[in-house]
This record gives sequence, structure tokens and C-alpha cells, in this order.
Amino acid sequence: MRPIDHTHAKALQTWVESASAADTDFPIQNLPYCRFVPTSGDGSRIGVGIGDQVLDLRACAEADLFDKTLADVLQKPTLRGVMELSVAQRIGLRHRISQLLARGNDEIRNGPGAQSLVAQSGVQLLLPVEVRDYTDFYASVFHATNVGSMFRPDNPLLPNYKHVPIGYHGRASSLVPGGQAIRRPVGQLSPPTDDGLPTREPSKMLDYELEVGFYVGPGNDLGTTIPLDRAEDHMFGLSLVNDWSARDIQKWEYQPLGPFLAKSFATTVSPWVVTLEALAPFRCPVYHRPAGDPVPLDYLMHQPNQTHGGFDLRLTVALATESMRNKGIAPRELSRGTFRDMYWTLAQMLTHHSSNGCNMQSGDLLASGTVSNQERSSRGCLLELTWDGGAGNPLPGTQRTPIEFPTGEQRKFLADGDEVIMRGYCESASHRRIGFGECRGIVLPAIA
Amino acid sequence: MRPIDHTHAKALQTWVESASAADTDFPIQNLPYCRFVPTSGDGSRIGVGIGDQVLDLRACAEADLFDKTLADVLQKPTLRGVMELSVAQRIGLRHRISQLLARGNDEIRNGPGAQSLVAQSGVQLLLPVEVRDYTDFYASVFHATNVGSMFRPDNPLLPNYKHVPIGYHGRASSLVPGGQAIRRPVGQLSPPTDDGLPTREPSKMLDYELEVGFYVGPGNDLGTTIPLDRAEDHMFGLSLVNDWSARDIQKWEYQPLGPFLAKSFATTVSPWVVTLEALAPFRCPVYHRPAGDPVPLDYLMHQPNQTHGGFDLRLTVALATESMRNKGIAPRELSRGTFRDMYWTLAQMLTHHSSNGCNMQSGDLLASGTVSNQERSSRGCLLELTWDGGAGNPLPGTQRTPIEFPTGEQRKFLADGDEVIMRGYCESASHRRIGFGECRGIVLPAIA
Repeated sequence: MRPIDHTHAKALQTWVESASAADTDFPIQNLPYCRFVPTSGDGSRIGVGIGDQVLDLRACAEADLFDKTLADVLQKPTLRGVMELSVAQRIGLRHRISQLLARGNDEIRNGPGAQSLVAQSGVQLLLPVEVRDYTDFYASVFHATNVGSMFRPDNPLLPNYKHVPIGYHGRASSLVPGGQAIRRPVGQLSPPTDDGLPTREPSKMLDYELEVGFYVGPGNDLGTTIPLDRAEDHMFGLSLVNDWSARDIQKWEYQPLGPFLAKSFATTVSPWVVTLEALAPFRCPVYHRPAGDPVPLDYLMHQPNQTHGGFDLRLTVALATESMRNKGIAPRELSRGTFRDMYWTLAQMLTHHSSNGCNMQSGDLLASGTVSNQERSSRGCLLELTWDGGAGNPLPGTQRTPIEFPTGEQRKFLADGDEVIMRGYCESASHRRIGFGECRGIVLPAIA
Repeated sequence: MRPIDHTHAKALQTWVESASAADTDFPIQNLPYCRFVPTSGDGSRIGVGIGDQVLDLRACAEADLFDKTLADVLQKPTLRGVMELSVAQRIGLRHRISQLLARGNDEIRNGPGAQSLVAQSGVQLLLPVEVRDYTDFYASVFHATNVGSMFRPDNPLLPNYKHVPIGYHGRASSLVPGGQAIRRPVGQLSPPTDDGLPTREPSKMLDYELEVGFYVGPGNDLGTTIPLDRAEDHMFGLSLVNDWSARDIQKWEYQPLGPFLAKSFATTVSPWVVTLEALAPFRCPVYHRPAGDPVPLDYLMHQPNQTHGGFDLRLTVALATESMRNKGIAPRELSRGTFRDMYWTLAQMLTHHSSNGCNMQSGDLLASGTVSNQERSSRGCLLELTWDGGAGNPLPGTQRTPIEFPTGEQRKFLADGDEVIMRGYCESASHRRIGFGECRGIVLPAIA
């Protein structure tokens, strides 16, 4: 049994004023972790978001606000040490941070002082950890069905889909934190010319993919597995992921071994890590499989009393063209969806990944694949929203026209200068909003 | 221009007696690097193989046998620092090590002494570095054609194959050094039962794949590329790779995103890293594409004067069952091939990998994919040797029977207790043999 956690109480207040705003992503009930370089330019360190501020955990640890074990971990330059903590230890850490930030507590004022609380606008946010292995899944059945329908109309969903949480290894080195611009890739494009020869050019079908990822906490040894009922003990926290995809490179290269250069040029991760503890009030049942769908094999079967395998997390994607930014026009929302309806849970992904004995390591990133729901307005990438830029096999009622913007600009896929902004948040009447912050990225032109 | 390197001269002799044997893999002309834990159990360190000994480079550095820059790098616990050296620096290091080991040189005897030279049999060999990203290619056209023929007889080779060095991201965490046993994976197997439901069982079609890999030396920044004529400056050295594969898991899971759990339970790498400098006398022309094959796109085109893109490296695979080992029966050779005939060179793989701006990092491992040649006797995995265990679509002249062993045992795929032994070496009349040592692995039973 996990210890009972009182840090979610809606009435809990903090002395950090900006965290009291009703629409803040980061009330005291959230406490998302980050890694940052302070304004001074001193070495990277870890912190916690509160309102529009970052609490510098290294400064707090140096001022003896944590016990020795935690202090050692909090003075490291990345979040790996925190991720390696046991569930009980990380709950203890959350409680202590909550206590320090609670209204009436003056330990920070009397200790490290104001310099330990810095404006988020003044710091550089980094990836929380150097990710050793990054894995991307394909867990939205709506996304998989849409993509399959475009290219295999008679057989959109492959026979394995409802049995196996399909995933593939991604490229870890090119993970970048939200806010860092990405460069349009050059590659061999589909379709080849009439004589069957490919050309090598900047991608003309650059896309984003809205995903949710999580960092592994404590890992497992090679040759062992992580049973489903223990999977969440190995999950540290969630972030938003933009799995940038060059569709024309992907179509040409991906058979038979899967996506490669179509994805490996960059993957953006939102810099804030929202812990499972912060999300506890927003857990929801696992996706209800339609009648006739197979029951998962035992090792992937959430028990009937595990009614909280899902996350009631809402997601939006917006886009601002360069011209819109120059004219001060707000980003246009492209989609709005929910993470509730994923065919596979994050826990199932982790358990499946380790089910052959593969070792997970702390800081590994597992992402969900594109999050799309049933409704057209929820589709999590341009490929689906514009139906392959208009080229996909037609489905009744599916829009195939470009997306229009207030400036009169149109998009089938991303243009240079476009900024993609993803957001995620949990909301309910009984609890404070828990937000993920933003996952931003601007597209730079390809290098000639 | 690279400096001229005199360390290959056949006449060069060493004072380490075992390195003078004609059949040693590690004469003074080789000098492969490794990482090891000494007999004392002290922390891991890097060394160089010479005959049946390891020269402890940390001990030599501590005894001031290297200049300061190199000494710092040689005292680190992994090979990453050496891999990060510039080409000129690493040639300088090779020259210095060659000098220290040359007959007549007594700096080691008068310096760190006998304790800096330890028997290979007494040390534990580790992975040379913690690999951050591992990528596996598919560069033998014979392998790709054979595999395609089994499953798509009308269309064995996909249209992209002769244009794109096909590859996919592998799992880095489960790379293990040669000598470490691997555990048979459990997974969802193909074919599903008659009612279309998969079962989860220990793999019944466990296979090896004979591959050659290389470690990246200095990397490149995200958003930049590595042009083909500079690719070898970014390549540090080669090892043998056994890409263990569970064929029944693979068949069920791999569509549409490629191999995942069929491979990620373990990949064995031979512990010795043979440098590009040691292999210089054994370079050979790139594979001669048959008439009618497309010319590579410019970025992948070896220039006419680059006639040495290949490696004249010979490869063997042998297998010893548990019963054979118990009876003292030598391993049975399963195949014998060459790395000359790969459709894509290692340099082309590296250049392609970075051609979309993906950043390579020192210590990244890129492997070739299964090395098979035209002849049946050269096929680099059991899938090809037994033609999918007898189930593959028949091809004229292709053996479909199990492989027989001196004990009367038969194999279509690997049994528990089987040991797979891969070897690689370069030989010519004008130069000393340059060997890779062995890449060994025993199959343990699956955990129930």
C-alpha cells in the first residue's frame, strides 16, 4: 500500500503568489520537476515549478532543508537520482516540498532566501535527464485506424494491434526540450520519380505528432520482467512529446524495419515532468474495449479492481505561423482531445516492454504514440487532420482540404517558421488544475 | 591527409611472447581496445589486447608513460574518452602503445612492471562503453533477398532497398559483452491459434544473427551531417555483434513499426574493439553492384578514387550444444563468409544515419545487419540456413532440413544450452593476421 498523500487538497495554499491564479498550470498541488540553467549561467540543476517560478532544489538542499539522503540526490545536475528513488522516498520528497511551499512556512525565507525562487521566464529549461533509451508506442486505436485507412483501406488495423502494444525504439540523442527550434530534415522522399529513382530534398510533408510520454523511475534487471500490478512503481512522471515526423521520408524508408530518419532528426519533450503522485486525483478507468475485441493476455490484463489505469488528461495542439506571430495573432487551435481513450495504458506499455526480459533504466522515456480520439477534432497530427494532405484514400465525411489560418495562409503540412504548441492539463470540480506547461517548437528551414 | 602509419609492418615484433604465435588474433599489429575488471576486482579500466594478455592502460598512464592529454583519457573507466579523440590523437596513441610493446623497449618493465600486463583469462571483459544509441542496419543484399524470398516470394527485395541503407533503432540497454549468457525470451508468438489468439510462451524459434558493428568516434551536432568523405574520421573501431532474434515473436509483432521485443532481450557484442588503424591493410573495394542496379544518390556515392570503402574481413559462426561441451566435442562450424560483399559500406550507413541532421555521439554502436553472401555456406543466421526451420517458401536448391551435430542432435533453431561462437579475422600474405577475438553466448532457459 502506498502511504496516503494529503498534498492534493484543494484548500492547500502556497506563499508563492502566482501559484494561486485559478488558471495556473502549477499550483502547489502539482509540483512538476524540471532541470534548468539559472540566470547566472551556473551549472544545470533541478527544480520544481510553482506558479510562474522555479524553486531551486539544489539551493534548498545546500541550505539543509532536506535530510541527507534526499539532499545528495537534489544536488545532482539531472533528475536521474530523483527518478531512482523508491515510491516511498519520492512521496516523502513531495511532502517535504509541499510543506516548504505551503502558506505560513518560512523555512525558505529564513534559509536559502529569495534567490532560491527564480522566474521561469529567466531560466533555460533542459531535458530532465540524459535519456538512455527512448521507445515510442502506437497506442491510440483511432490513430492506427486512421493511418491504416489511408494506406490499406481494406485492412486498416493489422491483426496484432489488439493483442500487442505495438512500439519501436526511437532515437534518444535527438530528444530536445520544448522551446528549442528544430530543423526541417533532408532525405530521400516518396514518391520516387517516374523512373523509380528517389530524390534527396528537404521534406515537403513535415508533421507533428501529439503524444504523452513518461520517464521510468527505478528500473529492472536484464532477464527480469515488470508485472502489470507493479508497473506504476516503475513510472516516475509524465511529459508531453512532439514526435516530429517527415511523412515523405517515412513512406519511402519504413518498410520493412519501421520509421528511422523520418523521426530521428528531432523529438521534442516538454520540460516539466508531472509526477504520478500529482496526477493521482485524475486517474480514470482503462479504455473500454468495444464488444468483440479480444481480451488482453493475462500479463497485460488490468485486474477488475484496477479501475484507475488511465489518465484523464486533456490535450490541445495549436499552431502559429511566422506571419501570425509577426502580426500578434494568437495561435490557431488545431485539435483538442483526451488521453482517456488510449487502447493501451502506459502501465501496459511498460510491462509489455519488459515482458521479454528487456531491462528498463531510470530516465528511459516511453511515449504513447499519436493521441487521437474518435472525433475528427481530436486528431493528433496533420496527416490525420488533412488526410495525408488530401492524398489519402477517401473516407466518407473526412475532410481533405488544407487547414486555414486567420492570415489566409493554408497548411497541409508544416511550413518553415511554423510554431507548434502542445498543452496538457487535468481539471475537475473537486481538485486544482494540474497542467503540463507547454511543448513548443519552431520549424527552421532545412540546411541547403 | 592522415599521417603515415608504420605500426602494421609484418616484421614488427613484441616482447610479449604469446603475441608472436602465427595464429594469434592479437599480434602487435592489432592492438584492440577493451574495458575490463582486473583480477583484483578493482574498478573497471581500459586496456589493449596483446597475445593472450591485456595491457592495463590505466596502470601505464599512472606510471607516466603517456603525455598528460592521453593520460587523462586512459585513466577513465570506459573507452569513451579514447573514442572522442581526433584521428591524429588516436593515431598518436596507437604509435605510443606500439612503441611500448615493441621488442627492445623496456619502459613498461622499468615502469609499472609486470602487474600492468595481465592474462586475458583472468579478467572480466565488459562492454567498452555505455552505448547511448544502438542502430542496426540490413546491409547484406543476400540476407535481405533470402528473408524476403521466404515471406514474399514474388517480391523479395522491396523497392527502397538499393537506394536506402535500411536500418532501425535498437535497444541499447540490453547490449551485453561476449561471454555473458543470455536468457530465452518469452513473448507473444506467431502463429496465433486457430481462433486468432496469440499465446505467450518461451520463444521456439530463437536465432542468432552474425553482424559486424562499429563504435562512433567523435560525433556531430544535431542539425549537421557527416559527409561520406569524412565518415571514417567519425568511426573508431569494429566489433562482432550477435543480434539474437526470436523469429516467432518477430513475425507476430513487427508490422508496421519493425522489430521490437524479438530483439531487445539481448544483443551480444564481442569485447574487443579493432581500430580502423589496425584494419588499414585489409581495406578493399566497395561491393560491385550488378549491372542494372541503381547508382547511389550523390550523398552515398563513394568516389571513384575511394576504392577502399570495404573491409576484407572473414567471419565464421560455430555452435556447441551442451552435450557436445560435456563430451569435449569441438563446436561445429555453421557458416563461413566475408564482410566484403555488403551492399552498403559502414561509412555509407553512418553518413545516411546523420543525413537528416541526426546527431551521432561517441560510443554509439552501428551494426551491419546479418552478414550473408551468395553461397549457402555463408548464411549468417539459422533462419536462412534452415530456411525458416523448413517452413519458408521453397527455393530451388535450398536446404530445408535441420542442421546435424556430431552427437546426433539436430537444430532448426537454438536450444537451451547451445553456445554460439562468432569469429572474425583479416589475413593476407603481406601482413600479420588481425583478429577480432570471439563473440560468445550461451542460451539459458526462459524463466517460467
